[in-house]
Amino acid sequence: MQAPADIASDELTDAERKALAQCRHAILGVDRPLALECGVELGPYRVAYQTYGTLNADKSNAVLICHPLTCDQFVAEKHPVTGKEGWWDSLVGPGKVLDPARYFIICVNVLGHCMGSTGPMARDPVNGQPWNLRFPVVTIADMVRAQAALLDHLGIPDLFCVIGGSMGGMQVLEWAASFPKRVFSAVPIACAAHHSAQNIAFHEVGRQAIMADPEWKGGEYRAHGTVPARGLAVARMTAHITYLSEQALQRKFGRTLQNRDALGFGFDADFQVESYLRHQGSTFVDRFDANSYLYITRAMDYFDLAAARGGGVLAKAFTGTATRFCLVSFTSDWLFPTRESRAIVHALNAAAANVSFVEVESDKGHDAFLLDEPEMFRTLHGFLQGAANARGLGNGR
Amino acid sequence: MQAPADIASDELTDAERKALAQCRHAILGVDRPLALECGVELGPYRVAYQTYGTLNADKSNAVLICHPLTCDQFVAEKHPVTGKEGWWDSLVGPGKVLDPARYFIICVNVLGHCMGSTGPMARDPVNGQPWNLRFPVVTIADMVRAQAALLDHLGIPDLFCVIGGSMGGMQVLEWAASFPKRVFSAVPIACAAHHSAQNIAFHEVGRQAIMADPEWKGGEYRAHGTVPARGLAVARMTAHITYLSEQALQRKFGRTLQNRDALGFGFDADFQVESYLRHQGSTFVDRFDANSYLYITRAMDYFDLAAARGGGVLAKAFTGTATRFCLVSFTSDWLFPTRESRAIVHALNAAAANVSFVEVESDKGHDAFLLDEPEMFRTLHGFLQGAANARGLGNGR
Repeated sequence: MQAPADIASDELTDAERKALAQCRHAILGVDRPLALECGVELGPYRVAYQTYGTLNADKSNAVLICHPLTCDQFVAEKHPVTGKEGWWDSLVGPGKVLDPARYFIICVNVLGHCMGSTGPMARDPVNGQPWNLRFPVVTIADMVRAQAALLDHLGIPDLFCVIGGSMGGMQVLEWAASFPKRVFSAVPIACAAHHSAQNIAFHEVGRQAIMADPEWKGGEYRAHGTVPARGLAVARMTAHITYLSEQALQRKFGRTLQNRDALGFGFDADFQVESYLRHQGSTFVDRFDANSYLYITRAMDYFDLAAARGGGVLAKAFTGTATRFCLVSFTSDWLFPTRESRAIVHALNAAAANVSFVEVESDKGHDAFLLDEPEMFRTLHGFLQGAANARGLGNGR
Repeated sequence: MQAPADIASDELTDAERKALAQCRHAILGVDRPLALECGVELGPYRVAYQTYGTLNADKSNAVLICHPLTCDQFVAEKHPVTGKEGWWDSLVGPGKVLDPARYFIICVNVLGHCMGSTGPMARDPVNGQPWNLRFPVVTIADMVRAQAALLDHLGIPDLFCVIGGSMGGMQVLEWAASFPKRVFSAVPIACAAHHSAQNIAFHEVGRQAIMADPEWKGGEYRAHGTVPARGLAVARMTAHITYLSEQALQRKFGRTLQNRDALGFGFDADFQVESYLRHQGSTFVDRFDANSYLYITRAMDYFDLAAARGGGVLAKAFTGTATRFCLVSFTSDWLFPTRESRAIVHALNAAAANVSFVEVESDKGHDAFLLDEPEMFRTLHGFLQGAANARGLGNGR
């Protein structure tokens, strides 16, 4: 067994250094490594996390926010790397749906990510070499077990609520299935109980774009001082299209040209939508690691809750659950369409679970869950208020 | 003005050589160059084309098939490069909807393509150097005018029918708007009167993938003896997802693994859908040119019939038309959804045109127009039979 010092000796990236300076972290798995689904025993490993608010005396007010693929633990504050506002600022803050005055809010950088938690950029404690592509493939369930280990470490027995959208919603479902007694309420938003063939296909395109970039160098780019920037940008551009709806793209950009009425008759960005996508691609490279992108997309591809926890039947993954569920989907989300949420609702009904479900009318596509959607806020506020009353959290103030 | 000999001195690729050996071609624009929309006068230029059947004495039985992005003039025969059956074998042949015993069927390799017609791989007749990225950006209207010039060359005054799907459908619409008196009937299938923001976005991802490939070398890869294979493969993979429906991917592949029940916990193709996409990508490279891919996708992006021919109003592009139209769309086509066809139908109605429209129920996505879709065949058969009677083509046999 390795000592935590091995983890401390990681060569951190600038981004990780900045991230860790602004959040908390724990070294876990020293005595008891994390048994990953792939068979590898991972330990020690670091989890970086951020918290907002204070744990009450009963330890009954903890809320875990699970972040999506390209967000991280900086939910409601200026991001240490990008300087942008928190990604779920609209939901978390004084007077908002998740008020730190009432709840102890935690968000954990998922395993395999690149904002401080152990991932492919870290060093293998066994030999001190960077993991890169030798890092074990982690799953949504592995991420969730690392979060559970952090809660143990923090002495938090259970969660008032686990909430998240997209890949965050997958983690919420995994939490509810794997640790039903530790989850009082669960809010999976804009997600699915498994990744579809089309979604796997889009991820595969992104991975191929990264791995086709000669600067990727088999994943060893850090040692070579290169960055597979163009491949990662193409991966991001592809994914970004899937986050928006056709209607939103039409409304925001249509066929509007960069240069007024004049077509350029060339391959520069003629249309505003091209310029927008290129910008999305190039800025992503500044804040995200290419190998992490491979690992996190793989984790999403592998997610299939019915197969993993229900012997092929989703309802069985939730047998006997006492958790209160609230699902939200968006009409124009074609990455995780409403029918995926409805399938989860049906399974929860079959498991006699306490479940509510709202399909929010929106033309903003999958990204709607990150945006200003009053009906989503009202739904979450009402649901959490009811759950807080049931949990004896009162009005909180 | 350059002599045709300049064209003959093109350094043909192997694929072009094989293509030209199996089809007809003409050198056009020697005396009167083609005035491209970008302002360049192109000439001389070569158009490669294939024909099936015989032109009747009245010259009244000519049918022009317009091919989509990645197909070509080999509609109904073994392809000279891939050895595969013709891409519209299901529609064209003895006893089929387009029977060579009845019609003189022509399909022209579009300008900018890579199966024998002049494109970025050809040599600029002015300086004898390969065009590559200096080839002028051509448009759908330019492609159509090159086809019209070929008809002039062949002494064919007008067409009984112009038919095509996807980019082929765009050409059909352009034909009907630009040369209404030369088009007796028009069949635009699974297309739109303009390329949407989302479709431009997907094309832009493909182009960025190609141009990000260092083997692309600013488009000069032939001189360097390289092929931007990985970039072109990623472009194809992205596009291929848009050609299929989510349902078709789910039905064909779902989450089925390559290796039975065992996840690989790595980045090889674990799921069948990944393996299928990789295959689509790698085989495409053998038959398509990367620069041509840039040019042809750009032509589609630029297509906006209302803006170009109707002063912003699509109906005005068809004012006074006597052409008979038949439109076909497919329920699961999300690249060119039914609402795009419906918008064309509305415009044709407003122009008091003779138009019929069928939305075919299919779960096969955009590619349905290339597949065995009995309802499409029945629709086209009925429409063409009526048009043939009106044209006095009788039963043809």
